[in-house]
Amino acid sequence: MANQTKTTLLLNWYANPYHTPIFVAKALGFYEEEEIKLAILEPTDPTDVTEIVGLGSVDFGLKAMIHTLNARAKGMAITSIATLLDEPPTGLLTLESSGIKNFSDIAGKRIGYIGEFGKKIIDDLAQLAGIDQASYTSVRVGMNVVDAIGRQVVDAGIGFINFQQVELEALYGKSRLLRLDQLAGLGCCCFCSIQYIIPDRMLQDPQLIQAFLRATARGTAFTTEQPDEAFELLCRAKPQMRTDVYKKVFSRTLPFFSRTLLNVERDWNKVSRYARHLGVTDVQFDVNTCYTNAYVPQTPHFDLQPIACCLA
Amino acid sequence: MANQTKTTLLLNWYANPYHTPIFVAKALGFYEEEEIKLAILEPTDPTDVTEIVGLGSVDFGLKAMIHTLNARAKGMAITSIATLLDEPPTGLLTLESSGIKNFSDIAGKRIGYIGEFGKKIIDDLAQLAGIDQASYTSVRVGMNVVDAIGRQVVDAGIGFINFQQVELEALYGKSRLLRLDQLAGLGCCCFCSIQYIIPDRMLQDPQLIQAFLRATARGTAFTTEQPDEAFELLCRAKPQMRTDVYKKVFSRTLPFFSRTLLNVERDWNKVSRYARHLGVTDVQFDVNTCYTNAYVPQTPHFDLQPIACCLA
Repeated sequence: MANQTKTTLLLNWYANPYHTPIFVAKALGFYEEEEIKLAILEPTDPTDVTEIVGLGSVDFGLKAMIHTLNARAKGMAITSIATLLDEPPTGLLTLESSGIKNFSDIAGKRIGYIGEFGKKIIDDLAQLAGIDQASYTSVRVGMNVVDAIGRQVVDAGIGFINFQQVELEALYGKSRLLRLDQLAGLGCCCFCSIQYIIPDRMLQDPQLIQAFLRATARGTAFTTEQPDEAFELLCRAKPQMRTDVYKKVFSRTLPFFSRTLLNVERDWNKVSRYARHLGVTDVQFDVNTCYTNAYVPQTPHFDLQPIACCLA
Repeated sequence: MANQTKTTLLLNWYANPYHTPIFVAKALGFYEEEEIKLAILEPTDPTDVTEIVGLGSVDFGLKAMIHTLNARAKGMAITSIATLLDEPPTGLLTLESSGIKNFSDIAGKRIGYIGEFGKKIIDDLAQLAGIDQASYTSVRVGMNVVDAIGRQVVDAGIGFINFQQVELEALYGKSRLLRLDQLAGLGCCCFCSIQYIIPDRMLQDPQLIQAFLRATARGTAFTTEQPDEAFELLCRAKPQMRTDVYKKVFSRTLPFFSRTLLNVERDWNKVSRYARHLGVTDVQFDVNTCYTNAYVPQTPHFDLQPIACCLA
């Protein structure tokens, strides 16, 4: 059953508009109603998250689908229990002034990547495009591609259409985004879908998982149905979000929130094939071990009372 | 000895200029040299930190001296092993336009407080000043006093001279800070000193504690000796810090970093007396159980090689 002590959730990145449904559910008391005292934690380095969840140090986490799959394939004890964001479009982001118009233009350029996978993806795309790997330089920049472009450390790098592209345009001018899904012929950016994950020890407490997802589903419904109030609630918890840029990031992110929270079988299969293509997993690896929809509320809005405007 | 898995540090607040020594030590590889793979985590609600450290979910944490003392007095298994910030001046922060010039002017006003202690401190000061508790309204605003003043939810609230006052002036105009230490006759703001804390289970691993503090001491030395480069390293890890306001917060914070990292006996004793005065602890409580200097490097700079400018 729900704990009397704190339940911990480790975000995939610093708290930002992606996480509005969670902050809304907390601010409106949805977790409390489930007897969950939720402590939300943020990593300063997003690449730490999978291992910390795998160690069981926290109860819940958030992580991209491809990293979740990779962690499971490496034997880490983590499982995806739901989806936060479905397929936020991702691409090679650059300023128009860089002169990069097509992927082949990366020859001679410095390309920022997030982590292990970004590098594999870029190198794979280069190989597909017949570009010599020696002709471009890879620079690990984590999620900080905008700052790296601004400091002229890279000419382009991997970012999201609804996040880093918004920031880049606000800070440094007109930009271009070469979508990875189109370049790789994937048909979607599901490898970047953001999943709710748990360490396997949490499987002992199915009621807590269900309670957490019920509250989160209500927060997601409120966020997508009353977005202005939702963003204001985020800003009250994290006043650093009270900027025009983050407001725009929020608006651009709204279409990608998963209202059902369901893991999408098609996407997991697609990402599984892609990971195999990239040489990350072998043929034996069973993608069905990565996720479960057993805890997602079947009718997520069943208990969603109409909520009066909560803002003074 | 140092772990092969991640070592976790939970900050006392979102990552900000207060934490520059830690980000510097990480960026310059000081933790790596000690074989520590440090994962830095941030709370979205600072009041969660003590309990999460007490539960042993993380290896290291940061928390104000008075909260550390209070947690120990309540039986939580945490110990302060070092000091990050000595006595950052704290006070009742307000806009000049509020008309609050003296503490007695809070009558009829809405006063923001951080948490449990802030409220006790305000009520105690009001009592000392002979102000009726019914004559002012207390509003819990956490660390977000600037946003609360901006939204006109409160007329004044508790903040730091080197942080929220800098933000308030940048965002909303001329401000005033009535220092709590002066109002309460404390002689210092040591109750707000920020301590490095550990759960008691970590006492089993003294070498890890010593290694962590050696690396941190080097990061602190670099921060105070080469502040411009230090701030740039912080911004590279957390590009959200790359603003004029945070740069000023950093400059205003520099004088308060503890270069020795030592727990200050005088301050612990003073805070212990103050906590007793506030009715938080009883006479039997032994403040010496709260902290130890056993792990602080005796000569923190002994292995500090001169560091060439690391910035491209």
